[in-house]
Amino acid sequence: MEDRITLDHGSGGSMTAELIEEYIIKEFSNEALLARKDGAVVRNLGKEIVMSTDSFVVSPWRFPGGDIGKLSVCGTVNDVLMSGGIPSYLTLSLILEEGFPLADLKQVLQSIKRCAQDAGVQVVCGDTKVVEHGKGDQIYINTCGIGFLKRNLSGQYEEGDLVLLTGSIGRHGAAVYMAREDLPIEGTLTSDCSLLCKEAVAAMEMEGIRILRDPTRGGLATTCIELIEHTSWGMELDETAIPVDEDVQTLCSLLGFDPLYLACEGRMIAIVSAQDAPLLCDRLGKDACVIGTITKQHPGTLLLKTRFQSERWLRKLSGQPLPRIC
Amino acid sequence: MEDRITLDHGSGGSMTAELIEEYIIKEFSNEALLARKDGAVVRNLGKEIVMSTDSFVVSPWRFPGGDIGKLSVCGTVNDVLMSGGIPSYLTLSLILEEGFPLADLKQVLQSIKRCAQDAGVQVVCGDTKVVEHGKGDQIYINTCGIGFLKRNLSGQYEEGDLVLLTGSIGRHGAAVYMAREDLPIEGTLTSDCSLLCKEAVAAMEMEGIRILRDPTRGGLATTCIELIEHTSWGMELDETAIPVDEDVQTLCSLLGFDPLYLACEGRMIAIVSAQDAPLLCDRLGKDACVIGTITKQHPGTLLLKTRFQSERWLRKLSGQPLPRIC
Repeated sequence: MEDRITLDHGSGGSMTAELIEEYIIKEFSNEALLARKDGAVVRNLGKEIVMSTDSFVVSPWRFPGGDIGKLSVCGTVNDVLMSGGIPSYLTLSLILEEGFPLADLKQVLQSIKRCAQDAGVQVVCGDTKVVEHGKGDQIYINTCGIGFLKRNLSGQYEEGDLVLLTGSIGRHGAAVYMAREDLPIEGTLTSDCSLLCKEAVAAMEMEGIRILRDPTRGGLATTCIELIEHTSWGMELDETAIPVDEDVQTLCSLLGFDPLYLACEGRMIAIVSAQDAPLLCDRLGKDACVIGTITKQHPGTLLLKTRFQSERWLRKLSGQPLPRIC
Repeated sequence: MEDRITLDHGSGGSMTAELIEEYIIKEFSNEALLARKDGAVVRNLGKEIVMSTDSFVVSPWRFPGGDIGKLSVCGTVNDVLMSGGIPSYLTLSLILEEGFPLADLKQVLQSIKRCAQDAGVQVVCGDTKVVEHGKGDQIYINTCGIGFLKRNLSGQYEEGDLVLLTGSIGRHGAAVYMAREDLPIEGTLTSDCSLLCKEAVAAMEMEGIRILRDPTRGGLATTCIELIEHTSWGMELDETAIPVDEDVQTLCSLLGFDPLYLACEGRMIAIVSAQDAPLLCDRLGKDACVIGTITKQHPGTLLLKTRFQSERWLRKLSGQPLPRIC
């Protein structure tokens, strides 16, 4: 077998079959995949089904703290969790650019395997396409996740509900930017790319849990607006309570980025009753903190109380300071 | 809103939201999508779940008889059907190239909508990414289909089982090739791109049905080999029984293609007991025909009895005469 992806690998013929046998089925051996059919028949746990899908086009595909493989599992698994589901099955679809090294493909698939194992999900079916050199960018991945509903997260808020965050913001966006620009900044700014299984399950077990979201593209500010914009509730965030690591803050100061709009890929926002907030915060780990409150004031809008005791209305990210971070 | 896709449309911010509201949610309005969450919670019919996914990179994205939108629904819906499932839900993920006209996107989405309605499936969640000009090719689509098992297609063959085909082969591959090369051949060679819902359901209702497959990439020959290669059974095809339309045959003769290896996107192969074959053939419509038999001879291999009364061993497609046909 050649050591780079060729158009022949996308033919649907013997080269495609070889690629799938050698690279996919060997890595992800399970009953559904081994059936070698166009689709997978999977066990039904008798609960409501939760589905989520994402295509990943991150550039570069490898970045400090992860790669497109890890990201494509974390992203979709986390989205199933945020919808109140426990993820069980994953589909995996690759769009490879002609010339992509097979050694790199292997590395990506091993990241996927490791992360899928950590998440307790099985890769049950997939697809591989190859496009000519110059019609893609090395590797794009789509995953679709299927889970079963554990907790119906209605998003029905009450006055005084609290907004919890599991850790510091903006590390993923900053790390991908650093990797792309090859910036000579000291230190090791790594992505927060990680699974949110434990955090999400802990939150789903609280009686007072209202809703869960991970602040990915658009960052914390955009995600918080999406959590209230179609409701009769407003949200207030306390800037001094929002953790931003020093390395991320340095990058933002240098380049004029606002960390509130930088993507995370391993952080969770939980809106929970004031009563349950202390216990949940405790269970979410040492970096978890309360960053804001739900209010009947200014419905549909997001107010930031700044560190200078002033107030600032936050809007959704407009424009695209950092394309292709996921 | 500008009339072309910009990187801002992929930001995850206000432009992304606008694109999703105006183009996706308006077209595919349903309860799961309107929840505007990262994932969809869907009804569970209490049966085994069938999943299938495909990424579509067909070039050009519009071809006689269809476009990438229609193809991305037919391809995945048909794969769920071939696995014995009745498709219910679809995810839709777009990778758009910067500069892609929004009018074209609208056209693709309308094809998807029409075809999804015909198939009785709901588009319940999705994702939109934008890549820089030159890092994609206008539009790539991934769909993942979820269905519920109607018939467990075990693939347990018996001596004398018959191989049925629902219509003439190779039209999709030939039509895409014609569109790509802008060939001045007379007539209207259109793709066979279509849903196989009726055909698959008719087949699943037969007691003697063994297995279903659609001969897409790699064509009839490659698909037939895949149906027997991991079994102790062989297959014999009768070349004179395999329908090839005159326009496809002309193109093949001119260019040296073998229609047995040209992709279909709306044809079904059914392997069925000899007893049930006549009734099923009747129910599959006027173009359906018996093209071969299952035999204990030469296990794992595919023999073609040619029109010249000679015999030819068929192998999987090797190499890639027609890249990116789906």
